[in-house]
Amino acid sequence: MTTIKTGNGVSAEQAAIEQQLTDRVLASFENTPDPRLKQLMQALARHLHAFIREVRLTEAEWNTAIEFLTAAGHITDEKRQEFILLSDVLGASMMTIAVNNEAVGNATEATVFGPFFTQDAPEIPLGGDIAGDAHGQPCWVEGTVTDTGGTPVPNARIEVWEADEDGFYDVQYGDSRVAGRARLYTDADGNYRFWALTPTPYPIPHDGPVGRMLEAVRRSPVRASHLHFMVTAENLRTLVTHIFVEGDPQLAIGDSVFGVKDSLIKRFEQQAPGTPTPDGRDLGDRSWARTRFDIVLAPENT
Amino acid sequence: MTTIKTGNGVSAEQAAIEQQLTDRVLASFENTPDPRLKQLMQALARHLHAFIREVRLTEAEWNTAIEFLTAAGHITDEKRQEFILLSDVLGASMMTIAVNNEAVGNATEATVFGPFFTQDAPEIPLGGDIAGDAHGQPCWVEGTVTDTGGTPVPNARIEVWEADEDGFYDVQYGDSRVAGRARLYTDADGNYRFWALTPTPYPIPHDGPVGRMLEAVRRSPVRASHLHFMVTAENLRTLVTHIFVEGDPQLAIGDSVFGVKDSLIKRFEQQAPGTPTPDGRDLGDRSWARTRFDIVLAPENT
Repeated sequence: MTTIKTGNGVSAEQAAIEQQLTDRVLASFENTPDPRLKQLMQALARHLHAFIREVRLTEAEWNTAIEFLTAAGHITDEKRQEFILLSDVLGASMMTIAVNNEAVGNATEATVFGPFFTQDAPEIPLGGDIAGDAHGQPCWVEGTVTDTGGTPVPNARIEVWEADEDGFYDVQYGDSRVAGRARLYTDADGNYRFWALTPTPYPIPHDGPVGRMLEAVRRSPVRASHLHFMVTAENLRTLVTHIFVEGDPQLAIGDSVFGVKDSLIKRFEQQAPGTPTPDGRDLGDRSWARTRFDIVLAPENT
Repeated sequence: MTTIKTGNGVSAEQAAIEQQLTDRVLASFENTPDPRLKQLMQALARHLHAFIREVRLTEAEWNTAIEFLTAAGHITDEKRQEFILLSDVLGASMMTIAVNNEAVGNATEATVFGPFFTQDAPEIPLGGDIAGDAHGQPCWVEGTVTDTGGTPVPNARIEVWEADEDGFYDVQYGDSRVAGRARLYTDADGNYRFWALTPTPYPIPHDGPVGRMLEAVRRSPVRASHLHFMVTAENLRTLVTHIFVEGDPQLAIGDSVFGVKDSLIKRFEQQAPGTPTPDGRDLGDRSWARTRFDIVLAPENT
């Protein structure tokens, strides 16, 4: 039999057989009543088939993929979400953020939400402390919330959350403590201020299939140090973001979930023990840090 | 801000931001020691990102995908494999078969393996019955195994398995019965013959997330009637395939896992009660069927 090889080493006859299969699968979704679901399923099948054809996936590799997904499913429970981790380390979470939060003028950039937000964070007054009994270096955080025209946004809801100095969020403590998270509201001039902990690097959970994958590809599971923000205000686009710590060595190594944007890297100024605090708080012999994060919210529906 | 919209309605600036993210994710796999793993992960990330960018996946849709995978993981156990079902109904299993079993001259075409094969099927003599206590219409199956040059292949191992007339494989019975499966060997002339059950259509398990997806896209979960074969012989490529039943209405509706190839559709001749059987077996007042499946094995490593 004469075979003409195409670019990727596949005969024209074989390529036609493969294309017919893809066409058959795409056609199977033709009767989907919801046009968006139809678009999603057809695009998913088209890209999935293109991947398999391009890499010439072997049956053993297909088996490995099935086993990987099975293991990810079995380690996932109410407290552990391996599929979100997988999406995160493949940059799929960050890409979804990117396509849904297009840059609008000078609006603050968004980044990944992560799995550690909770709805029930305690409200604190301006200048209050989010730490609870989480340990770490005290860090003063302040800034102003404005719209893209520079008008201050009073009463904007700011939700903040972070890991302690050992790299654990409160929901990972295994008890019901709430620590390292709070919500507060900007004042009449759009200003906010609170005490938090200076963020430190920590690994994403890496004792499961995603961790084994990262090891096989020699990637660090560590996230660059960060403090989470979600900012909500009437008639403005909700912002989900972090701030990162200038000088954190992990910024050069690479954030394991690709959350870093240059505009979100902030200077955290180290303060020697005894340096007077902005609100007169007495920190005894402890050092502390301070940072400023001015937040610009995009118009709604942009 | 002036934005120039590109083809898919995305500004050039936004497209650049998205491409930078993809490039960053691809670069993160650069240090993978295994070149094949590196190729696979980079291609996976590239196609995954292209999908998200093309469809402008919303955050709600991303959430639905995470929930779907989680539900698939939780329904999967030793007896139920939702990720294989997912791969099957997206045509990914069949595409993997296609790229690994390229057409070779007149060699018999391969199709999906499916989740119901077991290693421990009982050996039967030529002319024996694979049914065990599975119910269905008796069906005489015979044929010859040859190589692509037409030379008969003696002592080829033929493993066959199928569902009963209610659509269940023995492994779905919930006990340890072995039924509807066996292995046998071709004779010195490459011939084989056995009694089986006339295949009937049955749905893949559709009470889980894959079933709900099929319902949402208005696709039938039913597989076209088929009898599974795996044929193994020294120095020849192992063949995993089915034969399908000419005239089965499901062939027009569409096989739920895209396993059908025209060359695998065989005539099953219905025989009235009392029609003499090929081996003199007395079937009393039962009707029976007969079919012929001549098998051509490709050379090894093709």
